[in-house]
Amino acid sequence: MSPKSNGRKAVVLLSGGLDSATTLYFAKSKGYHCYCLIIDYGQRHRKEVKAALAVARAARCLAKVLRICLPWGGSALTDRQIAVPMKRSLREIGRGIPATYVPARNTIFLSYATSLAETIGAGKIFIGANAVDFSGYPDCRPAYYRAMQKVARLGTKAGTEGRGIRIMTPLIRKTKAEIIQLGNRLGVPYELTWSCYLGKARPCGRCDSCRLRAKGFQEAALPDPAMSR
Amino acid sequence: MSPKSNGRKAVVLLSGGLDSATTLYFAKSKGYHCYCLIIDYGQRHRKEVKAALAVARAARCLAKVLRICLPWGGSALTDRQIAVPMKRSLREIGRGIPATYVPARNTIFLSYATSLAETIGAGKIFIGANAVDFSGYPDCRPAYYRAMQKVARLGTKAGTEGRGIRIMTPLIRKTKAEIIQLGNRLGVPYELTWSCYLGKARPCGRCDSCRLRAKGFQEAALPDPAMSR
Repeated sequence: MSPKSNGRKAVVLLSGGLDSATTLYFAKSKGYHCYCLIIDYGQRHRKEVKAALAVARAARCLAKVLRICLPWGGSALTDRQIAVPMKRSLREIGRGIPATYVPARNTIFLSYATSLAETIGAGKIFIGANAVDFSGYPDCRPAYYRAMQKVARLGTKAGTEGRGIRIMTPLIRKTKAEIIQLGNRLGVPYELTWSCYLGKARPCGRCDSCRLRAKGFQEAALPDPAMSR
Repeated sequence: MSPKSNGRKAVVLLSGGLDSATTLYFAKSKGYHCYCLIIDYGQRHRKEVKAALAVARAARCLAKVLRICLPWGGSALTDRQIAVPMKRSLREIGRGIPATYVPARNTIFLSYATSLAETIGAGKIFIGANAVDFSGYPDCRPAYYRAMQKVARLGTKAGTEGRGIRIMTPLIRKTKAEIIQLGNRLGVPYELTWSCYLGKARPCGRCDSCRLRAKGFQEAALPDPAMSR
């Protein structure tokens, strides 16, 4: 892509899960030329990265896998000595910050996305953050994104001399069911997405992420195509 | 270090230059147990990283070199096809954002520092940012750090459930001469630091960074020990 500024160019953070896939299809539906940034941060398994690449391919978008390292661990997703919480009820999932929280993960992801957006002249960054049916991570809440927006404005050349970079969180106030209904209308290939925190042959159905996904499809009254693969 | 929270534990971003070295010695003088984070971001030369390691060793602090990748370039420091501005006058250096600006570099650095601080239970992050005798980078200004402080508070478990992480910029309003005078009192081994944007045997004396350094030592009425090595 040329570094020339283009208001219709966007960086989309793609994780392989259903929220970011829906976000990509939403951005595309609004006419953005999307450049997918897939960050491999040494999570427990590579299934997420493979799923993200498959979604980007299905959406016919350019994608870049950036491998980063968080050698200090600090999360069940990056340190195998910390267990992934299992079999928690939906009420328990909403309470407190679980062991799967990765310190400052979204700040790291957004800082790279900001750097890429500024370099290629993209005016928007899309991220599939959600603060309704979520695992209680602090970096998924609206106030956090408002603060990060300010950082993108004050900390970049694009923000101080140019047209700026906006961080877009179109799913932040939707329930998982609403996200799935939106994605269903937009033709998101949910069969390609991967939500489970474990990296087994099939989703475990018992981690927080599997539970939230199952609840979403149930409330949306739609079958989960990933379960019938 | 144990992950137990400790109000006297700090992460110090160390670049190999004189500002961050002074910041490390300042933090030490205030009684902090400093953990140096040295980020190798594929800059033009490795001299900075070697200098940072030498400073950390001289200060008897733990240090971690984190190698990251900014494959999209966008700066004269990460893309050899973009020239480093040379022979600019001190008046010119203050104006506009130069080609050595690295998109979102300090946001990336601070996001990693936040992740590390949260993981090891450090309550402070020290960074040697300066908004007086500086190259005009937007991510060196006080308003940017206030925004980043909010991100560290809202986007982390430490900020929402714990004692929080504070971003400390002790040099931000000092002139280069004041920084050098402070460092001189604190015993900073300036002979180990490296400021030049080029990676030759000796500092070039003509890039913005060399010019600001020379101005600082001149105004502080002190010899630059790195020039007599």
